[in-house]
Amino acid sequence: MTTPLAAIQSVRLDDENSTLIILDQTLLPNEKVFLHLSTMEDVWEAIYHLKVRGAPAIGIAAAYGAYLGVKASKEEDFDAFAAEFEKVKAYLASARPTAVNLFWALNRMEERLRKEAQKSVKDIKQALKDEAERIREEDEQVCLSIGEHALSLLEPGWGLLTHCNAGTIATAKYGTALAPIYLGEEKGYDFKVYADETRPLLQGARLTAWELQEAGVDVTLICDNMASIVMKEGKVQAVLVGCDRVAANGDTANKIGTSGVAILAKHYGVPFYVCAPLSTVDLTCPSGDDIPIELRKEEEITAAWYEKPMAPENVKAYNPAFDVTDHELITAIITEKGIAYAPFEKSLAELMNK
Amino acid sequence: MTTPLAAIQSVRLDDENSTLIILDQTLLPNEKVFLHLSTMEDVWEAIYHLKVRGAPAIGIAAAYGAYLGVKASKEEDFDAFAAEFEKVKAYLASARPTAVNLFWALNRMEERLRKEAQKSVKDIKQALKDEAERIREEDEQVCLSIGEHALSLLEPGWGLLTHCNAGTIATAKYGTALAPIYLGEEKGYDFKVYADETRPLLQGARLTAWELQEAGVDVTLICDNMASIVMKEGKVQAVLVGCDRVAANGDTANKIGTSGVAILAKHYGVPFYVCAPLSTVDLTCPSGDDIPIELRKEEEITAAWYEKPMAPENVKAYNPAFDVTDHELITAIITEKGIAYAPFEKSLAELMNK
Repeated sequence: MTTPLAAIQSVRLDDENSTLIILDQTLLPNEKVFLHLSTMEDVWEAIYHLKVRGAPAIGIAAAYGAYLGVKASKEEDFDAFAAEFEKVKAYLASARPTAVNLFWALNRMEERLRKEAQKSVKDIKQALKDEAERIREEDEQVCLSIGEHALSLLEPGWGLLTHCNAGTIATAKYGTALAPIYLGEEKGYDFKVYADETRPLLQGARLTAWELQEAGVDVTLICDNMASIVMKEGKVQAVLVGCDRVAANGDTANKIGTSGVAILAKHYGVPFYVCAPLSTVDLTCPSGDDIPIELRKEEEITAAWYEKPMAPENVKAYNPAFDVTDHELITAIITEKGIAYAPFEKSLAELMNK
Repeated sequence: MTTPLAAIQSVRLDDENSTLIILDQTLLPNEKVFLHLSTMEDVWEAIYHLKVRGAPAIGIAAAYGAYLGVKASKEEDFDAFAAEFEKVKAYLASARPTAVNLFWALNRMEERLRKEAQKSVKDIKQALKDEAERIREEDEQVCLSIGEHALSLLEPGWGLLTHCNAGTIATAKYGTALAPIYLGEEKGYDFKVYADETRPLLQGARLTAWELQEAGVDVTLICDNMASIVMKEGKVQAVLVGCDRVAANGDTANKIGTSGVAILAKHYGVPFYVCAPLSTVDLTCPSGDDIPIELRKEEEITAAWYEKPMAPENVKAYNPAFDVTDHELITAIITEKGIAYAPFEKSLAELMNK
């Protein structure tokens, strides 16, 4: 892998001080600041305020957060300790409602806790730390596999469009939607990437453009409303996006605007690929209608980032953070265990059981 | 008409000082500043820097600009005066390449010049001033008619989505796409308007949201990439947009992002209406492929408005100011002489000859 990715390491545990180190994504691209989080409140705040974001990275941070939340527990009895863990878990789960990895990671931590019930609390704490670390390491492998599968669908020289940020800083290392781009770059595929800026929080401009540029990838920034013209002009041969939750039927929740890009891609005959670690696939959720959509503050649209107000005072705004892309718009869902095609109920269930 | 519209009057001649008064749209919504332009260079600069924008308003400003450009001419001989006019015309025509009203208004001024060839240069100057004034007055009537035709397609209580700004400040008074909204408001139609913010220059947030709010219309600001979710949620019963140039086959150039909105509308079964003064219909232009698209500076995406850079230094950006909406995506084109439906070659030509 190229050096810049290894150098970023945006979510990791500092062994000595037992603090979680995260790259503060809200300060990019202007400042590269690593935060040291030592309490579960710090972790909750970092997730809520998008200092750490991207479904896999949120899961990793939450897992470490659960460990940090019980590390200093004075309980010696398993039941009391487990009760304390439950409170920590519920608290961290409340940070963001849409990303299933948050719940997935916390559930995995709880399973590990239950599995170690016979051990001493001290040993259980160590097991929880190990489990968080394992979640991080597995994510690296998962993203690498997704990248390899996705790359098999792409050809050298292609133009690729992506929305929001599903890159190295959204994961432990390779990213999901950006993983094939990094792997292709190593093989001289010479992709031309179009990054939607992704309003209102500009993850495409601030994060995707930044990390691709750091890694030497040819990236061009566009406004979200330019996706249509770049497809019409033949500049894009495939769309690659990440996801926050995939329902059993393939409906996919991802950053607001993703569904619009998928509709454009279908109109122009461009394949639309969702890169999804199986941890984001939620078979208990039948369809996109069952995925809660987080509404965020109106000020993110009317005031965030701007030198002066860019909308009239007191204007109403509607600010859903995600939308659901209908499975009929999705060419394939690329997971670490293989590529799922329609009908997704069948293909996703098969991959989950593989 | 409601008072706020009459009070705005964003493009008008100040008789006493013979200066063109325009509302500086780049300062909205924070400051309401009227500029007094006394030279054609001032007018060129105001058009180029979008201080005056919107196809009809650009045409009106250019007509006044042509008058201001020759007002102080020392020539007494018609041919010499006409030659001077031609230079002024070519200069003003260079301010923006896409909006056909710019050329349409300048051509009308030239026709008037030629028609008055037998008169004294002093009288011709007065005729040019009258012609510019007439273009402004006609625009008011044209927009009122467009508003009435468009309103006949809408029902009380509907949600309406618009992109960019095709309102009072883009015209002499009523706007094009916003004209039916203002007329409906007077009749108690109680529309709910969704305004796309329209990156990169935020005409929707700064201008449309501002003028609708000033007029007491229920307006909700959304990011461009939220048009898909508001349509999916059933919040939008029709899309209304203005245009910068309509080709003979109905292909329509308008603010970047319009074609994407049209594709979404088609996907969700929402009617997509283009409000077009016949001055924006260019029968000499067979299709959208023949409309030049203005590329603007990358900094409008990477730096404009922001307190600090919101994209990495030196990142590439692609910044087309317009896109072309394919005629197959357009439900109807609403003009001052009636509503054109497909096939547009026929219906538009008929309206032009009406």
